[in-house]
Amino acid sequence: MKSDIEIAQNAKMEPIVKIAEKLGVLEDEIEQYGKYKCKISLDIMKKNENKKDGKLILVTAINPTPAGEGKSTVTVGLGDAFNKIGKKAVIALREPSLGPVFGMKGGATGGGNAQVVPMEDINLHFTGDMHAITSANNLLSAAIDNHIHQGNLLRIDSRRVVFKRVIDMNDRALRNIVVGLGGKINGFLREDGFNITVASEIMAILCMAKDLSDLKERMGNILVAYNLDGEPVYAKDLQVQGAMALLMKDAIKPNLVQTLENTPAIIHGGPFANIAHGCNSIVATKMALKLGDFAITEAGFGADLGAEKFLNIKCRYGDLAPECVVLVATVRALKHHGGVKKDELNIPSVSALEKGIKNLEKQIENIKEFNIPVVVAINKFITDSEEEIKFIENFCSNLGIKVSNTEVWEKGGLGGIDLANKILETIEESESKFAPIYDINDSIKDKILKISKTIYGADNVNYAPQALKQISEIEKFNMDKLPICMAKTQYSLSDNPMLLGRPHGFDINVKEINVSNGAGFIVVQTGNIMTMPGLPKVPAANKMDIDINGKITGLF
Amino acid sequence: MKSDIEIAQNAKMEPIVKIAEKLGVLEDEIEQYGKYKCKISLDIMKKNENKKDGKLILVTAINPTPAGEGKSTVTVGLGDAFNKIGKKAVIALREPSLGPVFGMKGGATGGGNAQVVPMEDINLHFTGDMHAITSANNLLSAAIDNHIHQGNLLRIDSRRVVFKRVIDMNDRALRNIVVGLGGKINGFLREDGFNITVASEIMAILCMAKDLSDLKERMGNILVAYNLDGEPVYAKDLQVQGAMALLMKDAIKPNLVQTLENTPAIIHGGPFANIAHGCNSIVATKMALKLGDFAITEAGFGADLGAEKFLNIKCRYGDLAPECVVLVATVRALKHHGGVKKDELNIPSVSALEKGIKNLEKQIENIKEFNIPVVVAINKFITDSEEEIKFIENFCSNLGIKVSNTEVWEKGGLGGIDLANKILETIEESESKFAPIYDINDSIKDKILKISKTIYGADNVNYAPQALKQISEIEKFNMDKLPICMAKTQYSLSDNPMLLGRPHGFDINVKEINVSNGAGFIVVQTGNIMTMPGLPKVPAANKMDIDINGKITGLF
Repeated sequence: MKSDIEIAQNAKMEPIVKIAEKLGVLEDEIEQYGKYKCKISLDIMKKNENKKDGKLILVTAINPTPAGEGKSTVTVGLGDAFNKIGKKAVIALREPSLGPVFGMKGGATGGGNAQVVPMEDINLHFTGDMHAITSANNLLSAAIDNHIHQGNLLRIDSRRVVFKRVIDMNDRALRNIVVGLGGKINGFLREDGFNITVASEIMAILCMAKDLSDLKERMGNILVAYNLDGEPVYAKDLQVQGAMALLMKDAIKPNLVQTLENTPAIIHGGPFANIAHGCNSIVATKMALKLGDFAITEAGFGADLGAEKFLNIKCRYGDLAPECVVLVATVRALKHHGGVKKDELNIPSVSALEKGIKNLEKQIENIKEFNIPVVVAINKFITDSEEEIKFIENFCSNLGIKVSNTEVWEKGGLGGIDLANKILETIEESESKFAPIYDINDSIKDKILKISKTIYGADNVNYAPQALKQISEIEKFNMDKLPICMAKTQYSLSDNPMLLGRPHGFDINVKEINVSNGAGFIVVQTGNIMTMPGLPKVPAANKMDIDINGKITGLF
Repeated sequence: MKSDIEIAQNAKMEPIVKIAEKLGVLEDEIEQYGKYKCKISLDIMKKNENKKDGKLILVTAINPTPAGEGKSTVTVGLGDAFNKIGKKAVIALREPSLGPVFGMKGGATGGGNAQVVPMEDINLHFTGDMHAITSANNLLSAAIDNHIHQGNLLRIDSRRVVFKRVIDMNDRALRNIVVGLGGKINGFLREDGFNITVASEIMAILCMAKDLSDLKERMGNILVAYNLDGEPVYAKDLQVQGAMALLMKDAIKPNLVQTLENTPAIIHGGPFANIAHGCNSIVATKMALKLGDFAITEAGFGADLGAEKFLNIKCRYGDLAPECVVLVATVRALKHHGGVKKDELNIPSVSALEKGIKNLEKQIENIKEFNIPVVVAINKFITDSEEEIKFIENFCSNLGIKVSNTEVWEKGGLGGIDLANKILETIEESESKFAPIYDINDSIKDKILKISKTIYGADNVNYAPQALKQISEIEKFNMDKLPICMAKTQYSLSDNPMLLGRPHGFDINVKEINVSNGAGFIVVQTGNIMTMPGLPKVPAANKMDIDINGKITGLF
């Protein structure tokens, strides 16, 4: 069996100019990065102002399990399938982060015969967006410490600098550091730490911004510290948002690549799905809608986090409304939710499925809370039994939901035609009446309660004293009228990763609340969220190589 | 008067495909990064294997002064001038570092009417080479700390990790840090620090490497630490050189841009000129020689550092031999060397010139030590008096050296035609018999003494006890048969920045000696070399902006 990279390396890519052409984008409207990647000018949005937008389809999933669900693979394969049945589809994905590639994470470029290419480039430096974010972030950080060093006119409290440096590398040693050692010429000593680049607020901002001006304004609004009187200090107080915008001038432009089957794929922005909203950029999604009859996009983690934030945050800011949501599950993952251990997932067990499918049931209900039609996609595995598949089909059919068994991993677009058709039927039959589930003018606590009860199925929300203090502070400085970005374990509907399936009788425990004031959301942490991964004992990097002809091995 | 950026923004650039075409490089042999930048495949070297190389011209200068000499400007203008008189010239420059752009440094893209464009892009992310170096460097750093954390099989002495992390930002707070705080899950505590990216050994390696395989091998040879028995630990012991090479796969390819007058300019690699050798890459210089009849390149700082290292290190590894060296000086800078204060440099003073010109005299002698013909270029200023110019001309003519007054800043290539012609005459009249001035098999001390006496005019070399210990260690581990890379103040021929002109009766004081074993040289520090700059009180970043149409202001 061929590995993902072997399949990707055998892809028959079309020049990116041709892919752009298919979308009506002229050579003058793109900037090539080699022959198979390009950036698309935001000007094409103005040019197509009067063109009707395509239909938005969101791909999300049950709560992730170690068994793997293949959400990106389904997203890619679905795009190919649409094109196979003569519908003009554009895929809109997130950009993978460089650091985790060297740890143990797989790429974010799909798998098998449903991949975006050139996968090596997309998983490495791509078009430099991540590096631009790193630079803009660290310019702001350097400006903060420089300001303190050069007289500290703003009276920044060096104990309360909340904006951290970033690096696109899994590097645990940088999680907690002390900077400014070595005496007067090196500035003031203070505790600090690095996050991984995708956890930068600038990444979240890139994904929210309408254009470069909006990006600049949002970057200026980043809350970087408090002064000695306890008042907020913003990035704009340091006057570097112009220089930061300059560093982001190309990063704001969406990137175009293609699938193995030459379907256009826009890959742009990839914020953390916990402390940020985990979706690709609004400009990319809007561009996909403008250029395609169907725009297919995905959200991070399971529907309780990814889809919830996609719908309550991204759609709100971007004025977007999906016509249909695809919920991805696998037989194996559902059995895992039913209590089966990882090494026994290949053994057919309808009884485990019966328990585990409750997770899917709840996620279906969650999407319905937003008044959007749902289709379930079962990403097929060779070990799935006839009986198990039948059980899921019956279960969904009783709920009035269409199910499709997709085989995009094995067959590419061909394996997703049934899913594409079922989506078309669903859109035809049921109209989306999408609306977010809370009002941003509600109190912070009301918004959190609404999400916790409605989406997670929690009984109540408990707050640590620290979190209560933070709420008062956020309200005091009028930063409370923002949507909520929940940072919670992705493995459970609850805030306890051990509670699989559909847990009942639990509370959500809020530990910490911060504001991403530039991105425009309030981050609610229900546990210790790791914003800087580490490398494993044997990092993936150790197996990677490139030969004299540029042939890469070991990437995945 | 227009600013540099205004002139650059009004440039009539040709599509980079056309520029490549002029050089016989086909569209299939380049990778475009937008319309005006591209990378050139190293394969063109094989294709042109039998083509005779062009002639190499090195532009260097007197010891730098606050008055400015305009070495890059002359290099660019000279390239334009050659093309104006019908000679096919290719310019080979260094890549500017991103960080200092936001501090107070000007760009490294020339000035006035002698610039390379697009200057904004070249000074910002360009084609991502700096970011690739940052990533490769920090992957190695993460691997070191991860190795220690995961059991430390190599028994790395965490007190003796010599390889540092890098970031492309002026950030003094990161000079000296403590990493690994926060307990067991964050690894072992140790002292560390960040350098700016151009100070990374990987940057130096990029500039030495023949191709990607050589690059990988050299990266594997980086000395990263010592173990608890005091033996060296190399990057290859951590098995990440393959992954690092993968990150550098595009960075190894030279970048092509153009001047304001559409002369091809290859910009690639820009290592520190103190702890590294301060020249662009060997692959870029070789490519310029292959594609042009004349390749014009420059070296960092004055001739005592830049040219010495260009000739003793780069030319040795790259098997290069310049036909002619251009020594750049200005009347103002020579008067500064003669003791005139910065705010009095506009006042004509032949007597100050008489003293200051000794610096030029010594640098001329230095180039002659390498048996290469010299031409002096006086980069003209409006305040230069007739008499002063005459004085320099006579001085040089007595030494048998041609002098040209260049006006490339004001007139572009037209202002450099006289210089180009004088170079052609010089090459015609005197043959270069270039040879390095020392044998790499000489002892470390002999090599240092040779440079100090011959090039600096020092009486002797003194060693700090630490340096002597380091020499023994380097010899013990057989890393001593390498060329020397002097890290010395650029402002003086001596190691004391206050001694201007041509100092006599001084010693060179060596404080520290390290090995850049991957790059292939021994770094000799004569003082505290700052490898991480800081931002000034009002950083240049504060004045930068970009408007809704993408128009950049305040970059310089």
